[in-house]
Amino acid sequence: MIIILNEKATKDDVQGLVSDLMKQGLKTNISEGSHTTIVGIIGDVTALDIDNIKGSDFVEDVKRVTEPYKKANRKMHPADSMIKVTDDVTVGEGIFNVIAGPCSVETEEQIIEVAEDVKKSGATMLRGGAFKPRTSPYSFQGLAGEGLKLLLEAKKATGLPIVTELMNLEHLDMFADVDVIQIGARNMQNFDLLKEVGKCKKPILLKRGLANTIEEWLMSAEYIMAGGNENVILCERGIRTFETATRNTLDISAVPMLKKLTHLPVIIDPSHATGLSWMVAPLAKTAVAAGADGLMIEVHNNPAKALCDGAQSLNPVQFDELMQDIKRRVAFEGKRF
Amino acid sequence: MIIILNEKATKDDVQGLVSDLMKQGLKTNISEGSHTTIVGIIGDVTALDIDNIKGSDFVEDVKRVTEPYKKANRKMHPADSMIKVTDDVTVGEGIFNVIAGPCSVETEEQIIEVAEDVKKSGATMLRGGAFKPRTSPYSFQGLAGEGLKLLLEAKKATGLPIVTELMNLEHLDMFADVDVIQIGARNMQNFDLLKEVGKCKKPILLKRGLANTIEEWLMSAEYIMAGGNENVILCERGIRTFETATRNTLDISAVPMLKKLTHLPVIIDPSHATGLSWMVAPLAKTAVAAGADGLMIEVHNNPAKALCDGAQSLNPVQFDELMQDIKRRVAFEGKRF
Amino acid sequence: MIIILNEKATKDDVQGLVSDLMKQGLKTNISEGSHTTIVGIIGDVTALDIDNIKGSDFVEDVKRVTEPYKKANRKMHPADSMIKVTDDVTVGEGIFNVIAGPCSVETEEQIIEVAEDVKKSGATMLRGGAFKPRTSPYSFQGLAGEGLKLLLEAKKATGLPIVTELMNLEHLDMFADVDVIQIGARNMQNFDLLKEVGKCKKPILLKRGLANTIEEWLMSAEYIMAGGNENVILCERGIRTFETATRNTLDISAVPMLKKLTHLPVIIDPSHATGLSWMVAPLAKTAVAAGADGLMIEVHNNPAKALCDGAQSLNPVQFDELMQDIKRRVAFEGKRF
Amino acid sequence: MIIILNEKATKDDVQGLVSDLMKQGLKTNISEGSHTTIVGIIGDVTALDIDNIKGSDFVEDVKRVTEPYKKANRKMHPADSMIKVTDDVTVGEGIFNVIAGPCSVETEEQIIEVAEDVKKSGATMLRGGAFKPRTSPYSFQGLAGEGLKLLLEAKKATGLPIVTELMNLEHLDMFADVDVIQIGARNMQNFDLLKEVGKCKKPILLKRGLANTIEEWLMSAEYIMAGGNENVILCERGIRTFETATRNTLDISAVPMLKKLTHLPVIIDPSHATGLSWMVAPLAKTAVAAGADGLMIEVHNNPAKALCDGAQSLNPVQFDELMQDIKRRVAFEGKRF
Repeated sequence: MIIILNEKATKDDVQGLVSDLMKQGLKTNISEGSHTTIVGIIGDVTALDIDNIKGSDFVEDVKRVTEPYKKANRKMHPADSMIKVTDDVTVGEGIFNVIAGPCSVETEEQIIEVAEDVKKSGATMLRGGAFKPRTSPYSFQGLAGEGLKLLLEAKKATGLPIVTELMNLEHLDMFADVDVIQIGARNMQNFDLLKEVGKCKKPILLKRGLANTIEEWLMSAEYIMAGGNENVILCERGIRTFETATRNTLDISAVPMLKKLTHLPVIIDPSHATGLSWMVAPLAKTAVAAGADGLMIEVHNNPAKALCDGAQSLNPVQFDELMQDIKRRVAFEGKRF
Repeated sequence: MIIILNEKATKDDVQGLVSDLMKQGLKTNISEGSHTTIVGIIGDVTALDIDNIKGSDFVEDVKRVTEPYKKANRKMHPADSMIKVTDDVTVGEGIFNVIAGPCSVETEEQIIEVAEDVKKSGATMLRGGAFKPRTSPYSFQGLAGEGLKLLLEAKKATGLPIVTELMNLEHLDMFADVDVIQIGARNMQNFDLLKEVGKCKKPILLKRGLANTIEEWLMSAEYIMAGGNENVILCERGIRTFETATRNTLDISAVPMLKKLTHLPVIIDPSHATGLSWMVAPLAKTAVAAGADGLMIEVHNNPAKALCDGAQSLNPVQFDELMQDIKRRVAFEGKRF
Repeated sequence: MIIILNEKATKDDVQGLVSDLMKQGLKTNISEGSHTTIVGIIGDVTALDIDNIKGSDFVEDVKRVTEPYKKANRKMHPADSMIKVTDDVTVGEGIFNVIAGPCSVETEEQIIEVAEDVKKSGATMLRGGAFKPRTSPYSFQGLAGEGLKLLLEAKKATGLPIVTELMNLEHLDMFADVDVIQIGARNMQNFDLLKEVGKCKKPILLKRGLANTIEEWLMSAEYIMAGGNENVILCERGIRTFETATRNTLDISAVPMLKKLTHLPVIIDPSHATGLSWMVAPLAKTAVAAGADGLMIEVHNNPAKALCDGAQSLNPVQFDELMQDIKRRVAFEGKRF
Repeated sequence: MIIILNEKATKDDVQGLVSDLMKQGLKTNISEGSHTTIVGIIGDVTALDIDNIKGSDFVEDVKRVTEPYKKANRKMHPADSMIKVTDDVTVGEGIFNVIAGPCSVETEEQIIEVAEDVKKSGATMLRGGAFKPRTSPYSFQGLAGEGLKLLLEAKKATGLPIVTELMNLEHLDMFADVDVIQIGARNMQNFDLLKEVGKCKKPILLKRGLANTIEEWLMSAEYIMAGGNENVILCERGIRTFETATRNTLDISAVPMLKKLTHLPVIIDPSHATGLSWMVAPLAKTAVAAGADGLMIEVHNNPAKALCDGAQSLNPVQFDELMQDIKRRVAFEGKRF
């Protein structure tokens, strides 16, 4: 970390700052320029608060040189993390997973039909929302506990592990038989929820917030890992930009960037990234090429009658076509399902 | 609402769509162009899901003509809402409130000293965080229950109503003596938390999310109001943009826009908007000029030693100077404290 | 186009509006709701100015239903445009082109060495800047006319067609022997420059502006095409977002979106998209997978000594490795070089 | 400037870097940490190219500590610049100017009528576009030379100095009698145009680009100043963000930030900032409160029939009302017209 001092900094100020830092076990290196003095800090600065240091009026700016996350940092953990979901399903480098299913669980028929269809096409996990984060209080909010029950029936019928979103820490007990707990984009910085799932051992699928930087995203992963649960899967689902042609803008460069910064697996959700079903296939292809470890895709047996997100759902026939193509691409990349 | 059909739409498709809408009690008006057919919908479309309608492949686009919120909508409720906090303190048109205090409650001495200082300068409410949303799990997370206790002591000592953030719905019981519950920017779309505070009758200070549109913000207010609690105060605190000179970009135009769209009061938080203490005063001035109903300002007795957000906190002397200026401006606008 | 009228609209206002539109050869369809009246316009609205119509105080909003561009619109021109550069080089569907070379032309040795290297690796065109748009007036501004001369020598030596940026319409004469004229991101809405290159017949490589929507980009293509030059190649090079891990955010979804909206070819510049040389290869792969018609890549014989943009340049060895991989991927997609 | 080296940096690499910098007259200070080595550079780094230095694979990152602009920098020039437009009109600290007029010059009657109206209300300069940057080639492009002639007639009739936009450097001769040359948002980084106006002595009104940072904006001012013309007036006109309720988002915090960073005057254009005429007045008030040196406002004698930007224009009566209010506010701030 580097602290840049302005012209107001007296010798005493510099001395005071250096001795404060020394008390915290940090060494410093001072470089005086004509207008500014630079204090380099050597040691573990994870716990230092940049904003506090900026509170002094002789401090011009503070810049981090090292990442503020440790457990999620590839420098501390060079090998790729392999997240075991079940005996048959593992997420991580070299393996490609496809999580598919409807936005919301609606009926027993619907979820079992979709589960069977996506399994046949090659999906490795089933997704489906029981608790739904909806922008409007007047929109369908999900079947809640009943939805979880139906998901578990679909799991029994097909053997597919299930992935579903947790929005409320009071519901955690109800998720005992869920295989992967999803933390949605809107809850990426719901820190109490992150702490809570940090206490369990289940794999956590952590979606990127709509307008969160990669660093903030890794800090949210760090919250879960600092709690003791290192089974975190990251999921890029599009960020908010000025462009309005698509609902969000898929940040495909996040894949190679994350592969450099962290050892955690990364998957892509092309359905939420644009909100347009016809764009799911081309973006899924880019995910494979970028080196992602999997996909999360919305599939509904009747998109035009879906209770939510119909516009971005594939029907089972479209999904099957896409999967035939994805399988060829995964093989091309030297990965396996 | 307007549904735009593409060239794939057959007569049967149009017929089916119209009869679906009629079943939901809506009337339609059809206009055929050369490439597109436009279906105008007349009636209450609040519960219609745009994304579902877009799920049909003969639908090109769907555009809202009316706002998706009702209780927060000024069209449905033309008079300004006046939110009563205590017998002495009301938030709303014509009255100007200043909420001041430290980012975090740290010690009894600190919070009481700051409370007395800001009261003397003219603040009408005391703020202070007991539960703190921090990007890093390694940063100070607030004193929790102990912090709430200290806030209540500061309230007893000064008579100032207190405003503090709720992050976890399980903590709601602990907030029984809090005067205004703050929902932070990162929880603006934590819908379960919104539903929960919608059940109580306390005033809710709803901060705008970092990258949420004004419409989404009003939909979150609608969540609280739909639950039965119409005491919502909106707080703009800067949005995320490409600019890096300031931490966020204060969206000052949100004030007149909200005054047009909603009857709810609006206050400005210039401390979080830029993260720079020297910018609090100029932005506070713009808030008064824009027609805001108040300010929320961070004040710390020793910013350089603050446990969080020191860079953006004023010290009590700076705050007092600002308040003298703000009082003149409020009088200029024909408002009162 | 749809005009939404508010409650202030009298019968006379509606009548006046309708007769104004009729005078312009347009038909209307009126739909009255409880709070709003909707006027649908049928006919060619390309020349209507939305902002003017919004100037009436009884107009709430105006929404386009059809695209504002014609010549660039795939609806008017369903077949893919094939842009012929030389007898040997054509840009368009089914063919994959790679434009490579240094950010700036620096010396005769440098440009000829790089040209020979990239040709050997399979590049189909040579890029190199003679006139450089630099953020700082104190940075190297390019060799200007001398740079163009050196580019033409590299063309003579290798046979590679050359692509270089035009920043100033007074320089157009100097570009007589240039094969493809590049319009840079910062000049995407320099309309006088667009009009000028619309008068020549050379292929124009039109880069997307840093913060321009796809629609604005196509409108800039329309400027060139409306002038008579339909040889436009679009180049996505990253957009400006809140993310700071990469210099820009590559909008990979622009490729399928453009393939739907327009018949013009689309290439990707992964070098400018992130500003990081190690990210060029993964993003180049996503470009092929997304269906792009080519790549534009910075290659320098000594990136650490480049006079500009060294951080994002590949050296010839890295470029050769990438090309071997790209060739396999292009074959996989069923395209050819 | 600080160069951060990664673990690949050998002693020789560090040595080479240091001697390269010494050759450029710069001193260095080296600080070795466990994972990184930091090289602080002391001296004038304006001409150093960050991207080049990043081109070495042992360089992790490069961070500026001082601003890259000199002539526009308040540190080098602490006193406020006062830009003299005519004997009667000066722009700068303590004086408040209002530039008003139509988006486009349309007819002699129109421009003279508007000029007389805005003068009567207290405007100090007349604006009006002769050359118009329009997104669509099919929109009205301005009256060009004829428009300039009409502007000069309005100047003769009223004595108001005129402000109008230059889009094309070949037109500079035609601007001989124009008082202030405007460089529009879309040309903020048209560097050849900046260099050209840097050669004349006229005041230049430099609008901020839609998605340009404050630093980039000041670098564009630096281009003009480095050419010899220090008469630059900055104009904030809204930036592009994710919010769609307003066309752009007015960055009001740019005013105090610029007042800190530069000695150049700053004005606000509330008309373009939102695109909504009813929002001009509230935003104009915030501009005065923020410390801006003036306003630029669109006024049209018949907004609903304007040939461009009708939606954001005030009519003369609305403008007069606003001016009465603005005069009181300017007096309140202790400034004069």
